[in-house]
Amino acid sequence: MACEKHKLSYSSLLEDACRPFPSSRKIYISGSRDDIQVGMREVLLSDTSGRFGNEKNEPVRIYDTSGSYTDDKPLHDLKRGLPLLREKWIIERQDTEKLKGKSSVYAHSRNQDLRFDSVRFAEKKTPRKAQSGKCVTQLHYARRGIITPEMEYIAIRENLGRTAAGIDSPITPEFVRREVAEGRAIIPANINHPETEPMIIGRNFLVKINVNIGNSAVTSSVEEEVEKMLWATRWGGDTIMDLSTGKHIHETREWVVRNSPVPVGTVPIYQALEKVKGKVKDLSWEVLRDTIIEHAEQGVDYITVHAGVLRAHAAKTRDRVTGIVSRGGGILAQWCELHDAENFLYTNFRELCEVCQAYDVALSLGDGLRPGSSADACDEAQYAELKTLGELTQIAWEYDVQVMVEGPGHVPMNRIKENMDLQLEYCHEAPFYTLGPLTTDIAPGYDHITSGIGAAMIGWYGCAMLCYVTPKEHLGLPNRDDVKAGVIAYKIAAHAADIAKGHPGARVRDDALSKARYEFRWEDQFNLSLDPETAVAYHDETLPQDGAKSSEFCSMCGPDFCPMRMTQDVREMDSSKQPAL
Amino acid sequence: MACEKHKLSYSSLLEDACRPFPSSRKIYISGSRDDIQVGMREVLLSDTSGRFGNEKNEPVRIYDTSGSYTDDKPLHDLKRGLPLLREKWIIERQDTEKLKGKSSVYAHSRNQDLRFDSVRFAEKKTPRKAQSGKCVTQLHYARRGIITPEMEYIAIRENLGRTAAGIDSPITPEFVRREVAEGRAIIPANINHPETEPMIIGRNFLVKINVNIGNSAVTSSVEEEVEKMLWATRWGGDTIMDLSTGKHIHETREWVVRNSPVPVGTVPIYQALEKVKGKVKDLSWEVLRDTIIEHAEQGVDYITVHAGVLRAHAAKTRDRVTGIVSRGGGILAQWCELHDAENFLYTNFRELCEVCQAYDVALSLGDGLRPGSSADACDEAQYAELKTLGELTQIAWEYDVQVMVEGPGHVPMNRIKENMDLQLEYCHEAPFYTLGPLTTDIAPGYDHITSGIGAAMIGWYGCAMLCYVTPKEHLGLPNRDDVKAGVIAYKIAAHAADIAKGHPGARVRDDALSKARYEFRWEDQFNLSLDPETAVAYHDETLPQDGAKSSEFCSMCGPDFCPMRMTQDVREMDSSKQPAL
Repeated sequence: MACEKHKLSYSSLLEDACRPFPSSRKIYISGSRDDIQVGMREVLLSDTSGRFGNEKNEPVRIYDTSGSYTDDKPLHDLKRGLPLLREKWIIERQDTEKLKGKSSVYAHSRNQDLRFDSVRFAEKKTPRKAQSGKCVTQLHYARRGIITPEMEYIAIRENLGRTAAGIDSPITPEFVRREVAEGRAIIPANINHPETEPMIIGRNFLVKINVNIGNSAVTSSVEEEVEKMLWATRWGGDTIMDLSTGKHIHETREWVVRNSPVPVGTVPIYQALEKVKGKVKDLSWEVLRDTIIEHAEQGVDYITVHAGVLRAHAAKTRDRVTGIVSRGGGILAQWCELHDAENFLYTNFRELCEVCQAYDVALSLGDGLRPGSSADACDEAQYAELKTLGELTQIAWEYDVQVMVEGPGHVPMNRIKENMDLQLEYCHEAPFYTLGPLTTDIAPGYDHITSGIGAAMIGWYGCAMLCYVTPKEHLGLPNRDDVKAGVIAYKIAAHAADIAKGHPGARVRDDALSKARYEFRWEDQFNLSLDPETAVAYHDETLPQDGAKSSEFCSMCGPDFCPMRMTQDVREMDSSKQPAL
Repeated sequence: MACEKHKLSYSSLLEDACRPFPSSRKIYISGSRDDIQVGMREVLLSDTSGRFGNEKNEPVRIYDTSGSYTDDKPLHDLKRGLPLLREKWIIERQDTEKLKGKSSVYAHSRNQDLRFDSVRFAEKKTPRKAQSGKCVTQLHYARRGIITPEMEYIAIRENLGRTAAGIDSPITPEFVRREVAEGRAIIPANINHPETEPMIIGRNFLVKINVNIGNSAVTSSVEEEVEKMLWATRWGGDTIMDLSTGKHIHETREWVVRNSPVPVGTVPIYQALEKVKGKVKDLSWEVLRDTIIEHAEQGVDYITVHAGVLRAHAAKTRDRVTGIVSRGGGILAQWCELHDAENFLYTNFRELCEVCQAYDVALSLGDGLRPGSSADACDEAQYAELKTLGELTQIAWEYDVQVMVEGPGHVPMNRIKENMDLQLEYCHEAPFYTLGPLTTDIAPGYDHITSGIGAAMIGWYGCAMLCYVTPKEHLGLPNRDDVKAGVIAYKIAAHAADIAKGHPGARVRDDALSKARYEFRWEDQFNLSLDPETAVAYHDETLPQDGAKSSEFCSMCGPDFCPMRMTQDVREMDSSKQPAL
């Protein structure tokens, strides 16, 4: 549909993804071994000069999720996928092997089906799996005291290179290992997604954001979904979830995973339902299990499973204003009812863990009964499910499977902290991953803002990852522009949370931007911002002249009323007649 | 400049302002006397039907700041101004008189100057003033136990008609009176702005938002500023501030005040500086005093005065990253330095109060030393000034002058509550009125969001009015679209705060919208939203067909994956085989 309208080509997608950020260069910080090279963006600043004194301004390092697309000389072919950054580390551990013969029945038959040749990702790869009896999760290694290259990579990345530069930081590779070992953080890193740049989700690290993409039966194409992935990671998405429910789910995911520099999450039950032609009654653990293996073989780094939607909990939603609003939750509640049976994800949870530990697929325990409105927030159904998720967390940990726990949704501001505190208590400090929460229901079209407020707050209170919400929430499937609007709103929320938490160095970028602002280094102010293109466009709307970029005012106040210019005047008067003022 | 580009006409401005909201009608609730008629917008909803049962959905009443522009049959002429709603109440009190002869020297001479005939508001009006020795402030009446028609109007308005409908509410006319008498709330209501619909600013009422408009030397025209005022009040601005610093300040303000259904605030020192041709050294109490009288005679309801910018406090900003960022603060700090003298607003504060009590101009004690960056937040300079504002509050109260206190600015989330608590303590519970605060500095172009987060939080903590921030903040003068974006973001923040505070009835609109959402009453969902136009446009981007407005899905999930449809399926299965689920 929409794709036919704007006719995307992979080369134009790539061009957009590789466009350099202004006055920025990609740098790589080396770890203890040559193949640990952590990419960061460095924004180069102009010198302070003239009346503000003479001073060099150090470049500012920015946590970079855009992968090698923003390398100085990017070498890419979307049809071949990204380089295999982690492959050597995975092989070195000698606990995996290439898959012999078929594993996911569906994947095998789908890959043979000639009808999908035209949309299929061409580059073939044989998936890996743990050797029989082995567990290949980062949690497993961490518990055995092993610091993996992934952990070291993360320590450097979280410090934005401070460790490498010899600056003290609490975030050491050993700190990363311990947080993972204790279940407070996860490293989503499927052995079949060696393209991913290691990152961590945990409340003692930078707050992360997830970006949902994916088609629906109504709209979108493979190209559009690849475009959204590239756009999401360019603007700062730390993970993406491919929530496709429309056509070509298998092929779309392959394209996305092979080209994604960040971990990819999915909700396998969506595809399982598509496999049974939308008939909830026909779903079964067997269909879902095969789908999960299919995803695991493709390299999905974490999956959402709504294993906590128990019949007794779902019954508690009966008097809600908005019932069940999680797609997975809705499917499973309906299945239970149709079969007069308990949720098959709950009853087969241990077998699920066995699958996950063979690929290092992290579990994201879905909150299928999250509230869909302020009216339903913090009710019995929600908290009953949360307790069950806590029990499941402990079971997953028995299998060394990494776990995070999903949360709401819609919560008034005065009850956000309660949600965070209860999650920590019920779920034994496993990382919390929330959708917003939206703090009011009256602004469809602006739910990136209603939820950005809640997201910032819960991030400050300890939420590890914030699932973005776009302006299209409740109204339609987001397009590329909506994805960007959602990402920027959530980068703001996550960063505000990092500052409030006192994360070491979180304010470096703020302070550099504020100094540039005060000194009328307009270009530096734009370049340090989350979205330089928009900042410069807004400025230039009224003052497009080149000279305005060195003026000591903008069109807001005009030349006579700029308070920052006046302060500087006062400071100069002051220093010329010390010690007054 | 810009005005020449888009050539506005007053008739087209009016057409936009009067465009009815979809499925809405204006209702008027009567008070104890015939001329108390409180306007509200009522959104009419469709019935619940079909599988969701059969039920009438009551109309939802919405607090309405758009004045009579959205009457069912609006009768307006921007060249003549709004009807004089409060005139009779003011005259009845028999404590005012029409001005005899000139009062503001500048206003008198300006009104005689033929050069400004082309931009002048045509309708002439003789201003009123208190009779000699009288005080005409709402605080004065409140302290004497008088419930004014303004207070009764406000009680009805805050209750959205609940009182009139016989429903119990804590907000009675007497409650309004007491809150005003005790200084916890103000009613900005200049006797020369009888066009204004009474409203209240105090933490025990709905959280209000202010919308800054005004030209600068660089851009804008009278027409554009009238347009921004109309646009601001249409989308929910509770007060506006005309911060013009460019051409025709006097004339622009007259046009704005005569047509504004909400209180108008100004910062008189901006115009005073323009009068002395931008030379800070030439400013004096005399020039400013005449300017304040000029504003008071025109009907300005509250003025910002930076009387707390003392020399000793300003000295504490020396090591700041961003110095002084309040325009008024910058001007006064510079004046002090140039004259080696204390701030003339501080030294003449009692005379200022005498002027204010003669017109009921409320004081908004400006925070001239508010931080301009996270780096400078909550520093000694800021809090020292806040304490001084507390002293000035008590002096104003000696004169029965209404007072609110302005606050930051830029504050990390973890220190927002501290700001609120200290303001209540230092300023004796006078209403707090903050600009944001911005919770991070890294997102120019999106500061309606960085600050919307802080605004929602401080509103919840007790801030009475939130000064909006637009996407253009730090970059340029906002235009009409930016004004709307800022207003919507701040309506969200204020409403989220009302809900978190548990304001009676705050969630009625949310719950009605959520119910409509669940029942797939798409039109009702759009019509109940803050911005129906945007909501419907987003929905129609992918599903423009008329039939989609009654579909049980949107393009986000498509027909098979709508969780709310599934819940309803489950509920139906459930009720057909009681008592299971």
